[in-house]
Amino acid sequence: MKDIYKVIVYFCILSSILVNKSLVLGGKVRHFKWEVGYIHWSPDGLEGVVLGINGQFPGPTIRARAGDTVHVELTNHLHTEGVVIHWHGIRQIGTPWADGTAAISQCAINPGETFVYRFEVDKAGTYFYHGHYGMQRSAGLYGSLIVDVAEGEKEPFLYDGDFNILLSDWWHSSSHEQEVDLSSKPMRWIGEPQTLLINGRGQYNCSLAAAYFSNSSVSQCNIRGGEQYAPQILHVHPNKTYRLRIASTTALASLNLAIGNHKMVVVEADGNYLQPFSVENMDIYSGESYSVLFTADQNPSNNYWISISVRGREPRTPQGLTILKYHPNSASKLPKSPPPVAPRWDDYNYSKSFTNKILALTGSPKPPTTYNRRIMLLNTQNLIDGYTKWAINNVSLILPATPYLGSIKFGLSNAFDLKTPPDHFSHDYDVMRPAPNQNSSYGSGVYMLSFNTTIDVILQNANALRENVSEIHPWHLHGHDFWVLGYGEGKFSKKDEEKFNLKNPPLRNTAVIFPFGWTALRFVADNPGVWAFHCHIEPHLHMGMGVIFAEGVGRVKKIPTEALGCGLTGKMLMNNVHK
Amino acid sequence: MKDIYKVIVYFCILSSILVNKSLVLGGKVRHFKWEVGYIHWSPDGLEGVVLGINGQFPGPTIRARAGDTVHVELTNHLHTEGVVIHWHGIRQIGTPWADGTAAISQCAINPGETFVYRFEVDKAGTYFYHGHYGMQRSAGLYGSLIVDVAEGEKEPFLYDGDFNILLSDWWHSSSHEQEVDLSSKPMRWIGEPQTLLINGRGQYNCSLAAAYFSNSSVSQCNIRGGEQYAPQILHVHPNKTYRLRIASTTALASLNLAIGNHKMVVVEADGNYLQPFSVENMDIYSGESYSVLFTADQNPSNNYWISISVRGREPRTPQGLTILKYHPNSASKLPKSPPPVAPRWDDYNYSKSFTNKILALTGSPKPPTTYNRRIMLLNTQNLIDGYTKWAINNVSLILPATPYLGSIKFGLSNAFDLKTPPDHFSHDYDVMRPAPNQNSSYGSGVYMLSFNTTIDVILQNANALRENVSEIHPWHLHGHDFWVLGYGEGKFSKKDEEKFNLKNPPLRNTAVIFPFGWTALRFVADNPGVWAFHCHIEPHLHMGMGVIFAEGVGRVKKIPTEALGCGLTGKMLMNNVHK
Repeated sequence: MKDIYKVIVYFCILSSILVNKSLVLGGKVRHFKWEVGYIHWSPDGLEGVVLGINGQFPGPTIRARAGDTVHVELTNHLHTEGVVIHWHGIRQIGTPWADGTAAISQCAINPGETFVYRFEVDKAGTYFYHGHYGMQRSAGLYGSLIVDVAEGEKEPFLYDGDFNILLSDWWHSSSHEQEVDLSSKPMRWIGEPQTLLINGRGQYNCSLAAAYFSNSSVSQCNIRGGEQYAPQILHVHPNKTYRLRIASTTALASLNLAIGNHKMVVVEADGNYLQPFSVENMDIYSGESYSVLFTADQNPSNNYWISISVRGREPRTPQGLTILKYHPNSASKLPKSPPPVAPRWDDYNYSKSFTNKILALTGSPKPPTTYNRRIMLLNTQNLIDGYTKWAINNVSLILPATPYLGSIKFGLSNAFDLKTPPDHFSHDYDVMRPAPNQNSSYGSGVYMLSFNTTIDVILQNANALRENVSEIHPWHLHGHDFWVLGYGEGKFSKKDEEKFNLKNPPLRNTAVIFPFGWTALRFVADNPGVWAFHCHIEPHLHMGMGVIFAEGVGRVKKIPTEALGCGLTGKMLMNNVHK
Repeated sequence: MKDIYKVIVYFCILSSILVNKSLVLGGKVRHFKWEVGYIHWSPDGLEGVVLGINGQFPGPTIRARAGDTVHVELTNHLHTEGVVIHWHGIRQIGTPWADGTAAISQCAINPGETFVYRFEVDKAGTYFYHGHYGMQRSAGLYGSLIVDVAEGEKEPFLYDGDFNILLSDWWHSSSHEQEVDLSSKPMRWIGEPQTLLINGRGQYNCSLAAAYFSNSSVSQCNIRGGEQYAPQILHVHPNKTYRLRIASTTALASLNLAIGNHKMVVVEADGNYLQPFSVENMDIYSGESYSVLFTADQNPSNNYWISISVRGREPRTPQGLTILKYHPNSASKLPKSPPPVAPRWDDYNYSKSFTNKILALTGSPKPPTTYNRRIMLLNTQNLIDGYTKWAINNVSLILPATPYLGSIKFGLSNAFDLKTPPDHFSHDYDVMRPAPNQNSSYGSGVYMLSFNTTIDVILQNANALRENVSEIHPWHLHGHDFWVLGYGEGKFSKKDEEKFNLKNPPLRNTAVIFPFGWTALRFVADNPGVWAFHCHIEPHLHMGMGVIFAEGVGRVKKIPTEALGCGLTGKMLMNNVHK
């Protein structure tokens, strides 16, 4: 008998070791236990309420290796609101229900309930995560997700250390208030952000650099370093090379980032390697991420500014600043010169020149040379019954109560508009002028993509409601990277295709359309699931600026029940047993 | 063939007539289609965001006759929040799932979804409805529900016309902010309301009566009448008698109401007739409703004030005012005298004297003479890990993710604390002093009441955290009326029972406990369902001040699936078919 007990104990120990190490073929399982709730926080010196994770803002940084499985047990501690988290840039291959998009990939997690996000991070890179329900991203629900190369693998560049900075913008009105403002008739625009944040830290009503601006009425910040809004200082050693990982989860602002006196070499975008190129400053749009290398090769007795400035909208928001501190200088030693001066906010040629330098590293996957289906998406600002909306091919996206993934998988016919939204817009539409008819309509239809086909998307920008206004829109695709084949001015025409870059187009998950311009993308619809494709500007998505792609949903394996418990899928599953 | 068609057409017409008239034995079906959403509103002259129904605040008034069925199709138009509506004072006999208490009687209605509340209003009276999820009542989700006597029936008093006024209090900080403040460590108290509202209308930063107060720094309101915050004037004809229906849905404030120069005869409380008594002014606590009769027998060339003033807390909120306008005076003609002066806020003897006058009309149902179970409920303010909470017998109520009605009905064992909360508190607890140990713990346990037994509840007030502080708590019971057997000072003792009023105790659904006092209630547990019993002060409930009663849940008929689609009931029902 004693021996039997020994064997049992042995097996118990063995199995507990296996469970604890959570071995999964090809990588580790990284366990996280998160609680989402509102907290008092002072992102910029003025206290407000933010959406925090485990009582902190921004949320904890996830760090994993390519091939690992991330396992986040998320408990909703909000009082009346649902919540989801989207893992921006992670393609969710085989786990489309873990994409964290309410009304698309899953039902929002109810207050008091727990949902497990479990997915593989298959590709090294700089990513982030954020809320994707209502405007919860604007409320501060975001954090960084860094995937290092798999053990034994090497990056195609060398560095001595790395830093991670997540950029965002901050308003003093709550995201709830902003939602009501944007949904009002007439619409009340939320205005420019009060503060730009670097890793959730900014300064309002004072400036780290006020001393440099003789004509400024803003006072020098009096910061001890322990404040929630104290800048996170970057500590470097002279002559070492660093990787700066940058991601932007701004609600609105397009940004330009610079390190005073230092050049940067751009090497990664959205988790894909680039042909390295050197810049003095760089643009970054909401939804994008980059890695840049820089060497601490300047006068080591000085510290230097790192600055972010608004691009593409007339700025009413001061630069966001932090300090690059050379060892062994004091962190409180201010740089010798004023912060970098950003290019003019409306110098789009400058932005285009930067964007056109972004090309795939030699040896990167190449796009198919032809496409099976081309979808032209015209972005317009419209009025629907007096409400200001954004529409794509004259359809302003309204999300259904039942997430698409479940309703398509189970063939429910009443869950969303069965009418497919159009692949084209009127060939005589004048993108340079306000539409003669500014009316539009709501829709929840889906672009059903044939599995494994190659899809071209031409994003076409246009004049907004007001004359001579066309805005920047960074479009983000879930579930895929796409190749950016080209950018152009005015209306896309068939002959623009001849200039497509099929040789070394960069792979991205986010691409900008410039004012009055177009952007051409290509991807292969090879990831079974339902995927949002939308402007990453939070209020624009809220106002309908997005479309839904679905592909191979029949191939999606068992969707966890917890993702289906709302709307018509919940009803269907429950009513089968409960008559 | 033709004849068959005729027959079919005939049946179609017949059935459509039946459906349209929605005939139900004993009453009509009153149909309402409501959409809940945040709207910009100006309850007191300062614009804010309120929870509106069909774009209006307060929500629409429901008016029905006793025996009617109310059918409200409620669609949640919020972006990320669930919603429910509680029909305060309606006992929901046979429809416990329609009580509108999130986490108790149903799952909150998800954004984009519709839930049908369908219930009988079996008893004439003055009622109201309000949100019962998080602090959505504080956000403005409320309205009136008036049930007239059944056709052919008569009230036991006469009047020429009636008015309906719903009282509330208003803060300039959002209910979301208030929730975070109250849940903080250390707790941040929400403070006194900025404004008192009569039918959702109040005046901030100006007063209708400023002209009467020579030493006031507040300016006279300049109101044209069309403003959202313009007072609703009560139009009367000389020498006519009116019924004033009054209900209080305040989040915090206890009120005293007066009509300048006019006496009032109190005739109804919480939907039950009273032995009429005359007063110059009256107290009304949150959760209570009254009808009073008054005759327009004063000098008809004048108008008169109607005022509400804060009681029981040191007032920092100006009186709420409106005008009783005698025909044919102009509405803008101000009364001759200043508004009524309320009794001192801490004159509890005055309040007790009013409360003791409330007795059932002769012929009203009498309570059973004995009880089967007596539950002593000690109300204390506590600290749990530094968080300020309210607790009952040392348990601070925390609501589970799965509504009790479903989890008890289906015998789920993990949905809430199976440990029954205590029926008594320590006999040596000193209610006159702060507790020596102010610690407490959270709980979600249920008082399981044997069906059809008579329950006595002794609500025992005590000193709060600070010395010499004991607050007013109006306790509201769902699913029942109770008899109020008596009120007393200090700690309840067995011999207090001798003074119980078993002759003509009033039937109520809400009863106050005075500072350092007790209140004795009796009811019969004859309504199958799960029923909240809690302090009606919104922040107090939010801080745990409530208990849960369950009775005869096995007798509850089919709970609509839509009420069960969350938490463990949702999981259970879905997983039976979806393995």
